[in-house]
Amino acid sequence: MSKKANITNRKTIHIEWGDCDPAQIVYFPRYFAYFDACTAGLFKKVGLPKRKMLKTYGIIGIPLVDLRASFKVPSRFSDTVVVESEITEWRCSSFSVRHRLFNRGVLAVECFEVRVWAAPSEADPERIESKPVPREVIEMFSAENNHRAAHEKSRRKKR
Amino acid sequence: MSKKANITNRKTIHIEWGDCDPAQIVYFPRYFAYFDACTAGLFKKVGLPKRKMLKTYGIIGIPLVDLRASFKVPSRFSDTVVVESEITEWRCSSFSVRHRLFNRGVLAVECFEVRVWAAPSEADPERIESKPVPREVIEMFSAENNHRAAHEKSRRKKR
Amino acid sequence: MSKKANITNRKTIHIEWGDCDPAQIVYFPRYFAYFDACTAGLFKKVGLPKRKMLKTYGIIGIPLVDLRASFKVPSRFSDTVVVESEITEWRCSSFSVRHRLFNRGVLAVECFEVRVWAAPSEADPERIESKPVPREVIEMFSAENNHRAAHEKSRRKKR
Amino acid sequence: MSKKANITNRKTIHIEWGDCDPAQIVYFPRYFAYFDACTAGLFKKVGLPKRKMLKTYGIIGIPLVDLRASFKVPSRFSDTVVVESEITEWRCSSFSVRHRLFNRGVLAVECFEVRVWAAPSEADPERIESKPVPREVIEMFSAENNHRAAHEKSRRKKR
Repeated sequence: MSKKANITNRKTIHIEWGDCDPAQIVYFPRYFAYFDACTAGLFKKVGLPKRKMLKTYGIIGIPLVDLRASFKVPSRFSDTVVVESEITEWRCSSFSVRHRLFNRGVLAVECFEVRVWAAPSEADPERIESKPVPREVIEMFSAENNHRAAHEKSRRKKR
Repeated sequence: MSKKANITNRKTIHIEWGDCDPAQIVYFPRYFAYFDACTAGLFKKVGLPKRKMLKTYGIIGIPLVDLRASFKVPSRFSDTVVVESEITEWRCSSFSVRHRLFNRGVLAVECFEVRVWAAPSEADPERIESKPVPREVIEMFSAENNHRAAHEKSRRKKR
Repeated sequence: MSKKANITNRKTIHIEWGDCDPAQIVYFPRYFAYFDACTAGLFKKVGLPKRKMLKTYGIIGIPLVDLRASFKVPSRFSDTVVVESEITEWRCSSFSVRHRLFNRGVLAVECFEVRVWAAPSEADPERIESKPVPREVIEMFSAENNHRAAHEKSRRKKR
Repeated sequence: MSKKANITNRKTIHIEWGDCDPAQIVYFPRYFAYFDACTAGLFKKVGLPKRKMLKTYGIIGIPLVDLRASFKVPSRFSDTVVVESEITEWRCSSFSVRHRLFNRGVLAVECFEVRVWAAPSEADPERIESKPVPREVIEMFSAENNHRAAHEKSRRKKR
């Protein structure tokens, strides 16, 4: 891994009966709920569980502005899938996340999210506006942390 | 647009409390459930309510293979929005649908779906494969039908 | 109608593909999302759409404390059902709602909710506590209003 | 309870942003999706993951006929909760499941489900009818299996 390697979150998801539709495959909007949880898991991994993140930075969330997905292979209830998620780009007040869902090792769904760092508008607290992503948040995802995360993981394994 | 004008379905949706997340705006996967219902509404409009469509053509559904969406303005519970949906392209065994969600006249979400006409595989009924969209289904969406639909609508208004 | 008649909200619901599970019938948690929208519809009917209700009375919502439901007949996608909802009892800080879902005239699901009028705790704004339901809210559901509602409905029909 | 102690399934659930409503607490229908997954987990524990169960016994599912729940304490996104589930009674063609959701050791939600063993009707395959629960399924939940399950768990720990 070079120092530019992205932090990747791996989330194992058991596909439930209630996630599937009458065609007996995952009802596609459910994938986006999975991916939303995976993005939350990615931030949690660097030390920012969602509730803490909102409180610490005074944001209302990280809503989507753009989404692309391709569905290659259907998944079914009782399947166990793995989603790999990483932030692929930081811009001023937005960032991109890529999710890849694997079913038995096969890439089944790929999804690209663009999200904004969103806070209540100062002019009108009922409105939402994007804010610059704090430097320190981006740094939590940097290579150094990556090393620390890898280190901790290996420590955990040794126990 | 000339005689090739597409049939458009307009669906009014009341945004419910349960469609919204802790940021008090629509939880984005719920938009895709809306749009899925809008696609179903489009087929219903030309005479193919989903259950009938599945039975008549022996398909298991019209699952997505590709999706793009952009979220321009958030919507909130108690808002009433309108979604305009139309099929923008027919290919051999797939087709594209465009949805535009308007909130107080403003384009709030735009979504492009690519769906396939899907049936159980003949080799392995547990698998799904795409099939050519029947000619007559495409014709139901043709300009002539468009005129008929417009005609019926005006008749309904006169009553 | 005697003066004790409850205001009833009737909501027509088109059952969507995405509301159904691999058994091709409504996935039961979806019924509770329907009923939640029906309770909101009931308050809207007396002049309290949810967003206005929260703002006017400084509450965070009307969360459930108790629920009972019986599922008598399954419903399927492409079915159109009707839910009749009414408040059956007001207590100090809670109230009961009954929903009856009819499919082709047959009672298919019956549900009883107990909800509380809930506001942020004064001691700790992160906590929620129940508050007395305001007198004027209960009065909005009283017989007099019932008459007014009936009256307005008949006026609307005449137009 | 003596040697007839019930098999209990414990499922840890991380509450996601998308499971919560604008009051920032779990949207109550989501609890029922959790519990549905917990019932599936209970059957999986005795050797019947849902897809296998449906195939082996020719059933379409185990739909609900009756539900009761009480919501004692709200839960929020980023909370981790534990659900304990057990079958409390077997009747001819139905059975009862109890779920208890604990948040930081406190009983937060309790739910009682009555479900039926359901197969397509022989007279009309479009209809569903309840069937007797197979003897062997009930036996999988018996005390002996309970011991076996406990035994296997301790073996797994030792590895």
